Amino acid sequence: MLSINEGRSIPQMAHFQRIAVVGAGLIGGSVLLAAHRRRLAAEFRSWSRSEAARETLRGYGAGEVCATEAECVQDADLVVVATPVDAAAATFRALAPHLRPGCLVTDAGSVKAAVVAAAGAALPNTVKFVGAHPMAGSEKAGARHADASLFERRTCYVTPAGTEGRGAVERVHAFWRSLGCVTVETDPESHDAVVAAVSHLPHAAAAALMLAVADTPGFRAEAAGSGLRDATRIAAGEEHLWVGILLDNAGRVAAGLAVLESRLTALRTALERRDADAVRRILSEARRIRQSLDRPA
Amino acid sequence: MLSINEGRSIPQMAHFQRIAVVGAGLIGGSVLLAAHRRRLAAEFRSWSRSEAARETLRGYGAGEVCATEAECVQDADLVVVATPVDAAAATFRALAPHLRPGCLVTDAGSVKAAVVAAAGAALPNTVKFVGAHPMAGSEKAGARHADASLFERRTCYVTPAGTEGRGAVERVHAFWRSLGCVTVETDPESHDAVVAAVSHLPHAAAAALMLAVADTPGFRAEAAGSGLRDATRIAAGEEHLWVGILLDNAGRVAAGLAVLESRLTALRTALERRDADAVRRILSEARRIRQSLDRPA
Repeated sequence: MLSINEGRSIPQMAHFQRIAVVGAGLIGGSVLLAAHRRRLAAEFRSWSRSEAARETLRGYGAGEVCATEAECVQDADLVVVATPVDAAAATFRALAPHLRPGCLVTDAGSVKAAVVAAAGAALPNTVKFVGAHPMAGSEKAGARHADASLFERRTCYVTPAGTEGRGAVERVHAFWRSLGCVTVETDPESHDAVVAAVSHLPHAAAAALMLAVADTPGFRAEAAGSGLRDATRIAAGEEHLWVGILLDNAGRVAAGLAVLESRLTALRTALERRDADAVRRILSEARRIRQSLDRPA
Repeated sequence: MLSINEGRSIPQMAHFQRIAVVGAGLIGGSVLLAAHRRRLAAEFRSWSRSEAARETLRGYGAGEVCATEAECVQDADLVVVATPVDAAAATFRALAPHLRPGCLVTDAGSVKAAVVAAAGAALPNTVKFVGAHPMAGSEKAGARHADASLFERRTCYVTPAGTEGRGAVERVHAFWRSLGCVTVETDPESHDAVVAAVSHLPHAAAAALMLAVADTPGFRAEAAGSGLRDATRIAAGEEHLWVGILLDNAGRVAAGLAVLESRLTALRTALERRDADAVRRILSEARRIRQSLDRPA
């Protein structure tokens, strides 16, 4: 179902009259900075629920920072929703009465099936929604870490529902490409299966590993080296973002965790039996797969 | 039991007549390069089981590369054993008849209780053994990746058995410090408890995670981002080295894996129940601990 959409029909640079960014954490703030720097619209507006984040947005000097969602999206021809995924449905409902007919709406959420369904249920037929997920970000959250170059050369999934028409889908491709992304088109369910494997399961596993390491009698934070730091780095991510992500993809993540539990049980049993061949097979297979991640496709 | 030994009695630079390095992978090769560059001895000898590694050693221009272990350690006043930990006992037995009386022997193994016991059993009373573990290395194995600066500012555990006398212990501290390490003294069992938590359990967990991710239906290597790469990086380590390490510390690693399995089960159950509060508590606690790793002690 995945295809890297490099169709020549997609313009290299998107351009809009007025871009509205709703929700200004790391991703929303970076969208605003990147789009403003690249002059992707004549006007920019942004809004965030928190006054502290709005203050940060004002510091960007990237268009008007609005006090309400309604004012932010008024007359916009592109609206980028960058709230946490567990706030997406409420955000769509709040925006719906204020969107200009013909407006294009995209988002940046890490889970797509639930968000695309919420958009379909909440938004009026007079606007087009095309979900997206730029694979960018870090364990540093908040608009104060926003970066105009955050999206450069990062994969961005574009996940049409299938009913919005190619024109809208290609405008959304062009928008994310204009921010520096390489876009990949897939359906929402396939997207969620991919990120369950390469992002959500590793995140859940890193959190559990951090707790297990801290439970181990010999643990001393000052003894941590680069191996432990790297293995658990993603566990430093904002829990308020990640609770929503893991719950919106809970079925797949839980299935992945069950597989991980059985892999760990097999390795533990091999160690308990001092079965060197079994331990070697497990480590050798894991090494082979890990090395394949670094090979060019 | 841990103490950072900064006693003024320990000389800042160690100096020897002849240093012999036995086993030349990443660590042994780096010891040879670092000690040679710092002129820690008048003469250097090295030996490796493999002709390919001996050829690499010859390329260093760091003293004589010997064809046999016996020739390598002859007349040496410091012998550094840098073979894989599962070869340590056999190496000590092979060297024992050839060591000069008064010779000091140290090692670089990642597990200490088993290695210190093996040295005690195999080496003659006329020599002194003081185990050590420099916390350096990477998933890149082999003498061809050796680096004279590998040990700079890295922690090195020095793990006396308690019977070798302070003079020998302090000479071994001074040697590893001369290579750039910060030495920390502890008993072998406490060392093994620390590395079970901060190194061996994370290594085992990363291997199991890599296998579980690859088992997950949506997995595509080309979709892997920095989160997955970091979380599994250590799983690219040489399995021949790591089988010995995990087996020599199998009891503690298996106990840590059992804790990890129960942490994962708790998180999976919370996801299956869509229990946002329970998921948030787990992620929040993991984040707090992970952030503490980056704080200065």
